Amino acid sequence: MARNIVSREKDYSQWYLDVIKAAELADYAPVRGCMVIRPDGYALWESIQRHFDEAFKDSGHVNAYFPLLIPISFLEKEADHVEGFAPECAVVTHAGGEKLEEPLVVRPTSETVIGHMYSKWVQSWRDLPILINQWCNVMRWEKRSRLFLRTSEFLWQEGHTAHATREEAVEETLKMLDIYRDIMENILALPVLAGEKSEGERFPGADNTYTCETMMSDRKALQAGTSHFLGQNFAKAFEITFQNQDGELDHAWTTSWGVSTRLIGAIVMTHSDDDGLVIPPRVAAVKAVLIPISPDQAVMDRKLLPKSTELAGSLNSVLGKRSVKIDTNFHMRPGDRFFANLQKGIPLRLELGEKEFERGVLQAVRRDTGDRFDIPWDKAAVVVPGILEEIQKNLYDRALAFRKQNTFMVKNYGEFREIIEGRGGFVEAFFAGGRDEEKLIKEETGATVRCFPLGREETGTCFFTGKPDAKLAIFAKAY
Amino acid sequence: MARNIVSREKDYSQWYLDVIKAAELADYAPVRGCMVIRPDGYALWESIQRHFDEAFKDSGHVNAYFPLLIPISFLEKEADHVEGFAPECAVVTHAGGEKLEEPLVVRPTSETVIGHMYSKWVQSWRDLPILINQWCNVMRWEKRSRLFLRTSEFLWQEGHTAHATREEAVEETLKMLDIYRDIMENILALPVLAGEKSEGERFPGADNTYTCETMMSDRKALQAGTSHFLGQNFAKAFEITFQNQDGELDHAWTTSWGVSTRLIGAIVMTHSDDDGLVIPPRVAAVKAVLIPISPDQAVMDRKLLPKSTELAGSLNSVLGKRSVKIDTNFHMRPGDRFFANLQKGIPLRLELGEKEFERGVLQAVRRDTGDRFDIPWDKAAVVVPGILEEIQKNLYDRALAFRKQNTFMVKNYGEFREIIEGRGGFVEAFFAGGRDEEKLIKEETGATVRCFPLGREETGTCFFTGKPDAKLAIFAKAY
Repeated sequence: MARNIVSREKDYSQWYLDVIKAAELADYAPVRGCMVIRPDGYALWESIQRHFDEAFKDSGHVNAYFPLLIPISFLEKEADHVEGFAPECAVVTHAGGEKLEEPLVVRPTSETVIGHMYSKWVQSWRDLPILINQWCNVMRWEKRSRLFLRTSEFLWQEGHTAHATREEAVEETLKMLDIYRDIMENILALPVLAGEKSEGERFPGADNTYTCETMMSDRKALQAGTSHFLGQNFAKAFEITFQNQDGELDHAWTTSWGVSTRLIGAIVMTHSDDDGLVIPPRVAAVKAVLIPISPDQAVMDRKLLPKSTELAGSLNSVLGKRSVKIDTNFHMRPGDRFFANLQKGIPLRLELGEKEFERGVLQAVRRDTGDRFDIPWDKAAVVVPGILEEIQKNLYDRALAFRKQNTFMVKNYGEFREIIEGRGGFVEAFFAGGRDEEKLIKEETGATVRCFPLGREETGTCFFTGKPDAKLAIFAKAY
Repeated sequence: MARNIVSREKDYSQWYLDVIKAAELADYAPVRGCMVIRPDGYALWESIQRHFDEAFKDSGHVNAYFPLLIPISFLEKEADHVEGFAPECAVVTHAGGEKLEEPLVVRPTSETVIGHMYSKWVQSWRDLPILINQWCNVMRWEKRSRLFLRTSEFLWQEGHTAHATREEAVEETLKMLDIYRDIMENILALPVLAGEKSEGERFPGADNTYTCETMMSDRKALQAGTSHFLGQNFAKAFEITFQNQDGELDHAWTTSWGVSTRLIGAIVMTHSDDDGLVIPPRVAAVKAVLIPISPDQAVMDRKLLPKSTELAGSLNSVLGKRSVKIDTNFHMRPGDRFFANLQKGIPLRLELGEKEFERGVLQAVRRDTGDRFDIPWDKAAVVVPGILEEIQKNLYDRALAFRKQNTFMVKNYGEFREIIEGRGGFVEAFFAGGRDEEKLIKEETGATVRCFPLGREETGTCFFTGKPDAKLAIFAKAY
C-alpha cells in the first residue's frame, strides 16, 4: 500500500483525493470550489473528448460555440429552468469599468442562449433538424466541492438539437443516451445502467430526462451523463417556430444532452485501487511506460536508451503517437520510478534492465493485476496491443461483476433500508411513488431513484406504496 | 459579384461582415460585443487548433486547464499587468445568491492565476521547465466589436512556460514565435513578418513581445499571434522560486504566447474575394464538395448519388474523414447550389451531372481561380490532392506578392505620410524613436510600429528623429 494514499476501507473520500493528488490529475484552485486540471488529468479529458466528439460527428452532429455570458432575463423565460439554476449562478454586474444595465450570468448550461439563436436560424422545416454540440466551461456555484465530481466550474459538452416532430426529438434523446452508454462501457470500461429519471430528478425544463448510472467502488451511484427531451418548453419560451410542410407555423421540439469532467471522477472511483490510479487502456493517453534501468551510464547511453527509443517508436506506430512514454527519471531509485508510474495509472509497465537487454526482452507488469512476464523485443508491437485489450476487458468485467454482487432486489421498505443503510449498493424495487415518496425515502435513507432502467419491462407491486403494476426502479445513494 | 456581399472597393468593413454572414461563420450574440461561432466557423477553428496543438505537443508542451475566474487581487500583483487589463475586465460580484467577499474577474489572460499555481508546483530545478498550454475562452470588454477581430469574448490558446535560466526562456519565446510563423505560412497560407514589438506595443508585464504580422487585402496589418518574454516579472510577483543546481534559491524565468479566433478574421481578409469566403485547402474542414445534379429523380437515385457516395468515400480515404461533402440541396437550382458552396469558401467544387456521368468524369472548379476542368473518376483520388496543394500554394504566393507590392521603403516623414495616408500598405523605415515619437506618429497618421522584423539586421538614419544606427521597423495602420 502506498504511504501517500490512505486505503479505501479506512477513508474513501480521502482515498479519492489522495489518488488524484498522487496521479497529479487536479488541484484545488485559489478560487473557492474551482479546480485546476493538471496536464495528466487534462490528457485524460482530451482522450475522453476525442471519443465522444468522433461519435457525435459520425452521427451527423456539428460543433459550435455560444457566449459564456447570458442575460439574466433569458433564464427567467422558462419557469422551471430559472428556479433550478438561478440559485447556483455566478453573476457579472460590472464590465469595462461600468455597471451593466442588465446583470449577466456565467452560463450554468446554455439552453436559453442557444434557444434564442435557434429562433433566428430556424424559419422553415428545411432548416431542421439542427444538430449542434458545444465543448465549453460552465459554472454552478457549489458550497461543498469535490474534485471532478462537484466543482463550481467544470468542463463539459452540451448537445442542443431542434426537430420538426416530437418523435424525431425523442429518438434523438435516446440515440444520444445510447452513444453515451456505448462509449462509457466500451472505452471508459464503466458498466452503465441506462434509464429514465424520476419526476423529482428531472432536468429543470425537461419533459423527460434519461441517464447513464454507474456504480463506484464504495457502492454509491454516479450519474455519468444525461440526455433530456425538452418537449416544446424551450421552443415556446424562445419562440423557435418554423413553417411546416403544410405551410403552418409550428414550434420545434428540442433536446439537450451532456457529459462532463465528472467522467474522470467515475474512472478514478471505478477502477483505482489502494496503490493509486488505474486507467483503462483505450482511454489512457499514455498506454505503456518504458523504463530503462541501469546504474551504469555507459550501458544506459549505448544500449538501454537507444533500444528504448527504438521500441517506443515501433509501439507508437501501432498504438498511436505518444502512446508510449520513456521514463527518464534517472535520479530516482528504480523502485520509486516503478511506483510513480504505477500511481499514475498507466496500464502497462515495460522494464528494460541489463538482464533484459542481454536476453532481448522487456519485463512487463500489468497495472490491473500486477502480473509480471517477459515480452521479446521482436514480438512487442504484436503482443502489446493484445495485452492492453485484455486489461481493458478485465477492468470492465471486474466492474460489472462488482455491480452485480452489490445489486439487490427488495420487496419491502425493511429490506430496502437494510441494504441502503447497511452494506450499501444498488437496490432494485418496483416503485410507483411520486415526488413526495421520493423525498421521504431520501430523507430517511439518503437514497434516491437513480433511474427506471430501459429494457426492463417487468412490473410488480410497489415496495413502498403497495400499488400494483409499478415499474422497476434502481435506488442508491449517489454522488 | 454576389448580391448578398458588397464589394471590397465599395465598403471593405461591410464586405468583411457580408462574407462572414454568407459563409455562416459567425453571428453577433445577444450580449453586446460577444459572438456566436457557427458550425462552419467552428469547424475552421477546430482545424486551426489541431495544427497548432499537434505542433505544441511535438515540441514537448502539454495542455492543462486553469480556472475562469481570477481574484482581482491577483491582477494587482503585477503593476503593468493590472494597468493594462483591469479597465477591460468583466467582474463577478455575486455568486450562489450571495455577494462575494472579493470580486472575481473573468480571465482576460491567465498569467496571474497560472503564476500562482506554478509557485506551488515548482521547488527544485528538477521541476523546470514547465511547458503548459491552455485552450480556453477569455474576456476583454470591448466598446466597439468586430466579429473574430475584436469581441468581448474570444477563444484562444495561451502557452505559459517557466524556466531555470533567462537564456532558456528567451529561446522558448522565439521557438514558439517560429512555430506560429510556420503554421500561419504553411497551413493558413498567411505570409508573416515575424519581429519584435516596440516598447509602446508590448504586452503589459513583458520584457519583450514578439509578433507575427500579416497584411490584409485592404493593406492594413493584423497582429496574428504574439510570444512574450516575461523575464522574472511574474515569477517575482507570484513567488515562483526554485532551488538551483548550486542549492541557491532563484526566481524562474517565464514566457507566454497566444493565438486566437482572430486567425479566422485573418483568413477571411487575406484570401477572400467579392464572391465570398476562400479557405486554404490545408486548413479547410471541407476540402471539396461533390454536387450531383439532375432534374430526373431516377437518374439521381440510380446513378448520380451512388457514384457520388463512392467517389466521396475514395477521396475521403486519401484526404481524411469528412473532407469531402456531398451537396444534397436538391430543392435549390443548380446555380444557387454552386454559389452557396462557393460562398462557403470550399477550395474545390466537383460537379456530377448526367453528361459527366456518361463520360465518367467530374467537372472540377477551383475556388481560387475559377478554372474549370474534367477529372476522370478513376484518377480522382490521385489528382485531387495535388490540385488542392496547387490551390494552397497559389493562395500563399498571391498573398505574398500582394504584400510585396504594397510594402515601401521610406527615408523621411513626408514619404511616410504619403504612403500611409494615401494608398496604404506597409512602410519600412529606420526608426530610433521611443514611446513619445510612436504616439505622435500614431496621432498624426494612424500608423503604428508593427514590428522590428527579425533577420533584417541593417541599420540606417532614423526617418523621424534623424538619429544614426536606427533599426529597421515596419509601420502600418492595423486592426
